[in-house]
Amino acid sequence: MMKFEYKQLHVKSNGRRVTFTNITDEVKSFVKSTGIQNGICLVSSPHTTCSVIFDEFTHDKDWNDDELLQVDMVKILDKIVPREMTESDYLYPGPKHVAFLKQLNEADPSYDADPATILNADAHIRASIFGSSETVVIKDGELLIGTVGYLYFVDWDQNRVRTRNCNVALIGE
Amino acid sequence: MMKFEYKQLHVKSNGRRVTFTNITDEVKSFVKSTGIQNGICLVSSPHTTCSVIFDEFTHDKDWNDDELLQVDMVKILDKIVPREMTESDYLYPGPKHVAFLKQLNEADPSYDADPATILNADAHIRASIFGSSETVVIKDGELLIGTVGYLYFVDWDQNRVRTRNCNVALIGE
Amino acid sequence: MMKFEYKQLHVKSNGRRVTFTNITDEVKSFVKSTGIQNGICLVSSPHTTCSVIFDEFTHDKDWNDDELLQVDMVKILDKIVPREMTESDYLYPGPKHVAFLKQLNEADPSYDADPATILNADAHIRASIFGSSETVVIKDGELLIGTVGYLYFVDWDQNRVRTRNCNVALIGE
Repeated sequence: MMKFEYKQLHVKSNGRRVTFTNITDEVKSFVKSTGIQNGICLVSSPHTTCSVIFDEFTHDKDWNDDELLQVDMVKILDKIVPREMTESDYLYPGPKHVAFLKQLNEADPSYDADPATILNADAHIRASIFGSSETVVIKDGELLIGTVGYLYFVDWDQNRVRTRNCNVALIGE
Repeated sequence: MMKFEYKQLHVKSNGRRVTFTNITDEVKSFVKSTGIQNGICLVSSPHTTCSVIFDEFTHDKDWNDDELLQVDMVKILDKIVPREMTESDYLYPGPKHVAFLKQLNEADPSYDADPATILNADAHIRASIFGSSETVVIKDGELLIGTVGYLYFVDWDQNRVRTRNCNVALIGE
Repeated sequence: MMKFEYKQLHVKSNGRRVTFTNITDEVKSFVKSTGIQNGICLVSSPHTTCSVIFDEFTHDKDWNDDELLQVDMVKILDKIVPREMTESDYLYPGPKHVAFLKQLNEADPSYDADPATILNADAHIRASIFGSSETVVIKDGELLIGTVGYLYFVDWDQNRVRTRNCNVALIGE
């Protein structure tokens, strides 16, 4: 009998660099807990500056405790989608949008309207390139992600320490 | 009881620039109309030069009435996947493929075989990078896309005014 | 009645260039064989250096028998995510990770631990950019991929001749 199962994960962003969080164990535990044997697992970010990616875990880390493959990836991105450091780098956000974000902030303080933190056009563009979700097959109770494959939640926004949500939805039997 | 629901949306491409169409309201209305409370929503382009992306709506627009974040994104893409303006830019399409497209055009006039409009290698490569679809969680009757998240249908092809199809499929209960 | 169907495809990588394999016919045949009329089709790579993409088939090929659009795409990628030819190009893999891969190789010879073949940071980054899967709508027994749309399994790793797995999962009725 086909069923739907859902869980929300919470991940911390460091606010100084791109944050990669290995969520593989949490997703695997959730799949096990539902008893679903065959189906699909959708891992999805509701935030427009985050992505879910599938990649290898690398054992070596740099000075900042980031995995080497992630450091390599960010270095490439810094060339092709450079960081927005001031208003001459990108057109985003624009005056009306800043006013809108300030309004949002009044209603919900988790939407920070500090002008310096809003300069994240790079994070939006990177998130669209990498996509907001990954979908993986569940077969015989296991995620089909290979021996060296892992799921990472990525916060491309480097401007704010915050907690991000990650939605995991299963459809299967 | 798990069910399948389907709707095809139709969007207009301007034929002069990359066209971003905000389809969020249409997708939300469709989800509501089906009564599905929990499941997944797949939004998919059947066209090889289009993508579905998830990003913020920006209130400010440029001279062409394009949202600022989209203008920023296209400016980045013009550097990394430059437009095909003549045959020295890319190998695509090639003589056999042009002959094939001319044949298609005889059977179905919506496949324009004007050589100038076929020069769209950039649109194909951009579409593959961004991906042809996005999948979003439906929970308690709502799409989980956050407060500032929107779904856009993107036509990367800048050569033709035309109507594009966008497939929306739901599986849920 | 909603059901789950699964098949694993096997594709060969040439080990000298990026390998694009047109898997459209195999996926279509599998969909037909299940009798599913309406649902979704997830095509997913369990390998962290592979992607599934949706693009046009081009009739013309280059000297290496690669389709022109794929040659164009790889030429762009060689500029933005250059190949790792030696250890000054990327930080990946790092000494602990090489030791881990050598251990894997002792348990399973398909994990080649030859240092020269491990230099594939470019393949990992490209795979994350393009994504590990594509999901397509099934309607009235047909994949909604348009007249000129095809599914390709891409092995971005150019260092090893090997057989790769591709998972196809359907949920539908």
